[in-house]
Amino acid sequence: MILYALSLLGVAVFAASGALAAGRKGFDWIGVGAIAVVTAIGGGTLRDLLLDRHPIFWIADPAHLWVVLGSATVTLVYVRRHRPPDSLLLVADALGLAFFTISGAQVAEQQGLPGLAVVAMGVITGTAGGVLRDVLCNEVPLLFGPLDTLYATAALAGAGAYLALQAGGVERDGAELFGMGLVAALRLAAIAWQLRLPGVRVHGEGPR
Amino acid sequence: MILYALSLLGVAVFAASGALAAGRKGFDWIGVGAIAVVTAIGGGTLRDLLLDRHPIFWIADPAHLWVVLGSATVTLVYVRRHRPPDSLLLVADALGLAFFTISGAQVAEQQGLPGLAVVAMGVITGTAGGVLRDVLCNEVPLLFGPLDTLYATAALAGAGAYLALQAGGVERDGAELFGMGLVAALRLAAIAWQLRLPGVRVHGEGPR
Amino acid sequence: MILYALSLLGVAVFAASGALAAGRKGFDWIGVGAIAVVTAIGGGTLRDLLLDRHPIFWIADPAHLWVVLGSATVTLVYVRRHRPPDSLLLVADALGLAFFTISGAQVAEQQGLPGLAVVAMGVITGTAGGVLRDVLCNEVPLLFGPLDTLYATAALAGAGAYLALQAGGVERDGAELFGMGLVAALRLAAIAWQLRLPGVRVHGEGPR
Repeated sequence: MILYALSLLGVAVFAASGALAAGRKGFDWIGVGAIAVVTAIGGGTLRDLLLDRHPIFWIADPAHLWVVLGSATVTLVYVRRHRPPDSLLLVADALGLAFFTISGAQVAEQQGLPGLAVVAMGVITGTAGGVLRDVLCNEVPLLFGPLDTLYATAALAGAGAYLALQAGGVERDGAELFGMGLVAALRLAAIAWQLRLPGVRVHGEGPR
Repeated sequence: MILYALSLLGVAVFAASGALAAGRKGFDWIGVGAIAVVTAIGGGTLRDLLLDRHPIFWIADPAHLWVVLGSATVTLVYVRRHRPPDSLLLVADALGLAFFTISGAQVAEQQGLPGLAVVAMGVITGTAGGVLRDVLCNEVPLLFGPLDTLYATAALAGAGAYLALQAGGVERDGAELFGMGLVAALRLAAIAWQLRLPGVRVHGEGPR
Repeated sequence: MILYALSLLGVAVFAASGALAAGRKGFDWIGVGAIAVVTAIGGGTLRDLLLDRHPIFWIADPAHLWVVLGSATVTLVYVRRHRPPDSLLLVADALGLAFFTISGAQVAEQQGLPGLAVVAMGVITGTAGGVLRDVLCNEVPLLFGPLDTLYATAALAGAGAYLALQAGGVERDGAELFGMGLVAALRLAAIAWQLRLPGVRVHGEGPR
């Protein structure tokens, strides 16, 4: 019950982030709606496709789509008059990332996948929606680039900690809480102190 | 039988539109062929993946791929000498959009999905190929942006009307015809009178 | 056994190519890792999704993911000090393309698909990872454009020859070797002599 509410909250926040990104590109209402949908359900959809889970979560339960459309509408109405509440959105987004990452890892765990695939599914569930948003907006995905403040890193660390703690004997509920907390804490700390991963340097030009 | 012919016609028109877009980017023959294929079968492929329908329609029946390749070839040969027949293509594309949207909605309906998911599948089937075309051409998807003349809007309205009419007691065949007609009429009217959805405005700059 | 080793070699080379492309875009470590993963396993993943083969190859056998991460790490460490060994990489990449193309075609063949779908699956398996790499780097996919030196063309020719030889009575092992050899030879010849497909010309401007 709490998990279901968290899931809808996460979807709502990701939808708002998608709607804002699309609005900043000057998209029309359909474009904003489409980007909101893709941002909110893209990660979970890719997870379900890769793991052959059908019906896909938002096809089975249309509440997710309604929440996306409601959230996008509220966002658009609000930002016609006001500046978006960016700090609030960043905190909510960190919670959404935490929830999606750990719940994605759990889905993979229940299928008995090897550890590395469990971590990969967690990161994909948490981050793929934002990558799709950026691809559809024709931008370099934020979370790959040098400006990113540990978005995927936080997901990776949280999913890894969730698995490592269980391997070390901690029970699932504790590992889950710790994993989610680590994702949110790392991400918020990175925003607060502008923490970033080092960029990569490559010598010389490429062929072709 | 008529439906099968319409399906191949739609695929042919979408392939021509993809081939022209790729040709305008200066792609080579392989690139043009690839974009034509993705534009023509992308929407139906995404629908089949999301609904777990296997084998995917063009894998089960290679006639679709042959029609795509034939249409792309004819298009390329024609445009070496002549201006593309843009008005004709726009009309044919509106018919293709109408057919794909309603037939995509019907596939979802036969699986007993909730109404919102039926509409979503109709819109995805009709429009995702064009979005993929634009992503692969490294362009902002036309149908999200302020220049779009009601492409996805027409699909949304047609799929919605198809469902609403049935809920109101109209039988499927009538709802199907009305839905397809509405998609094509809206789209052609939007082109003729340059109808567009309003753009969205967002105050202030974004974080990150 | 040899095939499994070739598969891991192909994955390693594609991962290095992805890591270099991401490094040249100035991505951070996470971005480089993500692009390396997508480049290396994207083609096979799309093949498995389209053919409904589950679990997907890298989920079933995490060795592939470990090889990707190892290869990306070695690549990044190496290029901090040295120029990338581009000629070596191009040769290895041609071998990877040859292996992935023919093995992708074989998977489709074992499912009894029609010839055109077998060829399409071979080309998709060999090339889709590189297309995804370019899309995620926000570049026009190299292999569609006028600068491409027969990348997809080589895959197409090799997969076609593999099928045609079998239809002409050659046994599978011979057709396989010839197909792989043709892919690698065409690609390397195209690089050596800068062979390219002609670009396409379209008269006039587009509508919309």
